[in-house]
Amino acid sequence: MNLSSSLLEAAVKEFSKLPGIGKKTALRLVLHLLKQDEHEVSNFSETISRMRKEIKFCKTCFNISDNDACSICLNPSRKKDVLCVVENIRDVIAIESTEQYNGVYHVLGGIISPLDGIGPEQLTIESLTERVKKDGVKEIVFALNPTIQGDTTIYYIRKKLNNANLKYTAIARGIAFGGELEYADEMTLAKSIRNRLPVDSYIQ
Amino acid sequence: MNLSSSLLEAAVKEFSKLPGIGKKTALRLVLHLLKQDEHEVSNFSETISRMRKEIKFCKTCFNISDNDACSICLNPSRKKDVLCVVENIRDVIAIESTEQYNGVYHVLGGIISPLDGIGPEQLTIESLTERVKKDGVKEIVFALNPTIQGDTTIYYIRKKLNNANLKYTAIARGIAFGGELEYADEMTLAKSIRNRLPVDSYIQ
Repeated sequence: MNLSSSLLEAAVKEFSKLPGIGKKTALRLVLHLLKQDEHEVSNFSETISRMRKEIKFCKTCFNISDNDACSICLNPSRKKDVLCVVENIRDVIAIESTEQYNGVYHVLGGIISPLDGIGPEQLTIESLTERVKKDGVKEIVFALNPTIQGDTTIYYIRKKLNNANLKYTAIARGIAFGGELEYADEMTLAKSIRNRLPVDSYIQ
Repeated sequence: MNLSSSLLEAAVKEFSKLPGIGKKTALRLVLHLLKQDEHEVSNFSETISRMRKEIKFCKTCFNISDNDACSICLNPSRKKDVLCVVENIRDVIAIESTEQYNGVYHVLGGIISPLDGIGPEQLTIESLTERVKKDGVKEIVFALNPTIQGDTTIYYIRKKLNNANLKYTAIARGIAFGGELEYADEMTLAKSIRNRLPVDSYIQ
């Protein structure tokens, strides 16, 4: 695309780096911003850059947060002895929006996947085991994508915790095998977290 | 959407203000930016805000530009006596990408549309008439959308210029490449058969 302004060209290039945004869409977005008031656009850019600079990860559950502890961990009405293990922040958001879960989370930061070079040591499993001991956790709810990697991760964590007094559950397999948790509709996700099953019946 | 961070929420809100970007897409874009290096994200936001602050409009043709004159007006190989009248910057970009036009442009900044409250005085028609006199323009190429408003604008400008020595042309109307003849509207088909072209000039 041959644009008459290098400023415009640079802005289009930045937008088209975003996932799913091609050059034509990027141009449409940039021309939209060009029509807005200057303070609106600086608001936009400042919000984005401030978000990236100031956002923190909760020191307990590794969810994103404005401070060292996230609003879910700080909420006194949340059951601290029920712990939902998820792959990433998107999964926390997805489960939260079902309004069916009243425990706390533990964000692994990924999933065990030897092919992608991700082993248990890259995830927050070490801190999960510490947390289970310290907080007197009674139930671990695995809410991982239903894939081989998800099952491997569940298996590994269970082995690692090695705690017979814990109740292990997993979200029900209402979601198709190989599906992506974050794209599931709320109904399915709501049902699958309400009807969570003992792990023994799950991995078979 | 219930997010655990107000910074994240603010960023999602800003993104979802953009046209065609819903809340889910906004979240996906924001989480993508969250994964990038801090300098990459500040690059992104600085480029956008700099673009909005520093971009100028060419004082001659009202195309967007880095300076007071755009690269098309400054280009010595462009014919200054052929002037293409377009509605907006997007049309300049579209025509430029065909690489078939070697004249200069005049961006109206809209189209006469009484229903939308846009009259000739809101457009750059005054400066167009001055330019025609000053630059010794020989041909005006109307490249406006083929609508009632477009035709009205062409009619008004011609009347206003009131110059018999000028050659007035307009982009050809006809069946679009890949279009189906039988589904074309009568107006278009009538015009395209009346303005039929020698086949030699047609297939190129």
